[in-house]
Amino acid sequence: MVKLTDMKFVDYLDSTTKKNDSLLCVGLDIDLSRIPHTFLNKEDPIFNFNKEIILATKELVCAYKLNIAFYEMYGIYGLEALKRTIEYIQEEEIPAILDAKRGDIGNSSLAYAKAVFEVYKADATTVNPYLGYDSIEPFIEFRNKGVFVLCLTSNPGRYDFQTRGEKEPLYKVVAKRVKELNKNKNLGLVVGATNPEEIKGIRAMAEDMPILIPGIGAQGGNLEAAAKYGPTKNGTRAIISVSRSIIYAGKGEDFAGQAKAEARKLKDMINQYRRTG
Amino acid sequence: MVKLTDMKFVDYLDSTTKKNDSLLCVGLDIDLSRIPHTFLNKEDPIFNFNKEIILATKELVCAYKLNIAFYEMYGIYGLEALKRTIEYIQEEEIPAILDAKRGDIGNSSLAYAKAVFEVYKADATTVNPYLGYDSIEPFIEFRNKGVFVLCLTSNPGRYDFQTRGEKEPLYKVVAKRVKELNKNKNLGLVVGATNPEEIKGIRAMAEDMPILIPGIGAQGGNLEAAAKYGPTKNGTRAIISVSRSIIYAGKGEDFAGQAKAEARKLKDMINQYRRTG
Repeated sequence: MVKLTDMKFVDYLDSTTKKNDSLLCVGLDIDLSRIPHTFLNKEDPIFNFNKEIILATKELVCAYKLNIAFYEMYGIYGLEALKRTIEYIQEEEIPAILDAKRGDIGNSSLAYAKAVFEVYKADATTVNPYLGYDSIEPFIEFRNKGVFVLCLTSNPGRYDFQTRGEKEPLYKVVAKRVKELNKNKNLGLVVGATNPEEIKGIRAMAEDMPILIPGIGAQGGNLEAAAKYGPTKNGTRAIISVSRSIIYAGKGEDFAGQAKAEARKLKDMINQYRRTG
Repeated sequence: MVKLTDMKFVDYLDSTTKKNDSLLCVGLDIDLSRIPHTFLNKEDPIFNFNKEIILATKELVCAYKLNIAFYEMYGIYGLEALKRTIEYIQEEEIPAILDAKRGDIGNSSLAYAKAVFEVYKADATTVNPYLGYDSIEPFIEFRNKGVFVLCLTSNPGRYDFQTRGEKEPLYKVVAKRVKELNKNKNLGLVVGATNPEEIKGIRAMAEDMPILIPGIGAQGGNLEAAAKYGPTKNGTRAIISVSRSIIYAGKGEDFAGQAKAEARKLKDMINQYRRTG
């Protein structure tokens, strides 16, 4: 039998989406000031908190997303805990997406690709398109790994450059270029949870590429639009990522139970919308 | 007396530019397969190699640049050696620019800013503009630190998005937006060593903002254009970064002497061009 981690990323994603009947992704945005105090006076608080959240939610998700920024800010210790968390997620046979938004010229981008896929051993990552195709190519060469290119984000700064363009907004030019570069069938797009028309339009352009949709929950994104218009016609390949409103749902002893309840609620809401989509 | 590291970045840069009469920046792009073999069988080869290069070149440069990609690919050890190298550069009272090309939405970008300025303690960093102003702002809030925003790069992929635009290419829109955001006078631009007209145009737009110009040497950039048109009218605030052709100039016992000779040659060439500029 083929090990899940040896599959191509889209197949791995399809299998966990089906197994857990879920498009929900839990974002493990660690913040030591928000985790229950019981973790703080023990060894490895970051990993042990993540482990409890993963144990509570692993049957409700299609993937986990780890934004490396929140680990880098804790220095060497944060990155060690990140590695341990990714290993643990993979033991549970769920894909781990390292949200790193890297991108540089040729040999520097190759070094970044080695870092995310060989050092941190992520199953997929996010990249920034500003430097163009040769900044994305070193990532694509890791054929079994998923590579999500930033397309349209949901923050106020999206209007500075992404939506700019007389004939066509930049984010659509990016989406088209990503499709052209998708020779290894391992590319996807990052699309912030924004309005229905934008998500619908990007899904039409993306065809069957996976779309990672962060920004639900604490960031006030639009869950309904993401769930209705993010997936393909089969109702798959949308990864709807929710971070703080799940992992910090409770602060007391039952924080994991409360995270589980919140994850279940969001998973079910997403499924209601996608079934009618 | 004010410690150099407590100055605003541009003042710190101006002081080393003047002291060493140099616009040259040495890029410490570490590659264990290219450093002399004598380092490989001892403790901490990355730091010890960097230290020898810094000792040999510290009177010839205005700054050092460290691309974090080349340290991340060596995992935890690489990042420990990066921290040690930055500390060492600062003991020598030269600014250390951490070329990290980060950028994310609000609170994630703040986490990245903390990583580069508080964990790695860099004096300046590079950021990617794709996500817009709120991805850059958390960096700007570190008022004494330098923040170089990617504008126009010299790699083939520059034509995908950076030069695109009917009325005005994206990179000029980025340059203008960076000027608007420069309330703390700590922003700068990253401009690949390309043709004279482009560098001249960007310098005119940037007024007295510092410009970081990588891509000289191994990447085949245009040293003359960078040195003539990169600086302000005073002949300052251009940081011309050369990496591999200096640090790997020699492979034998005298590698540091050869690096020094190459750095001196480039420093002098830059000064010839900038004097006549």
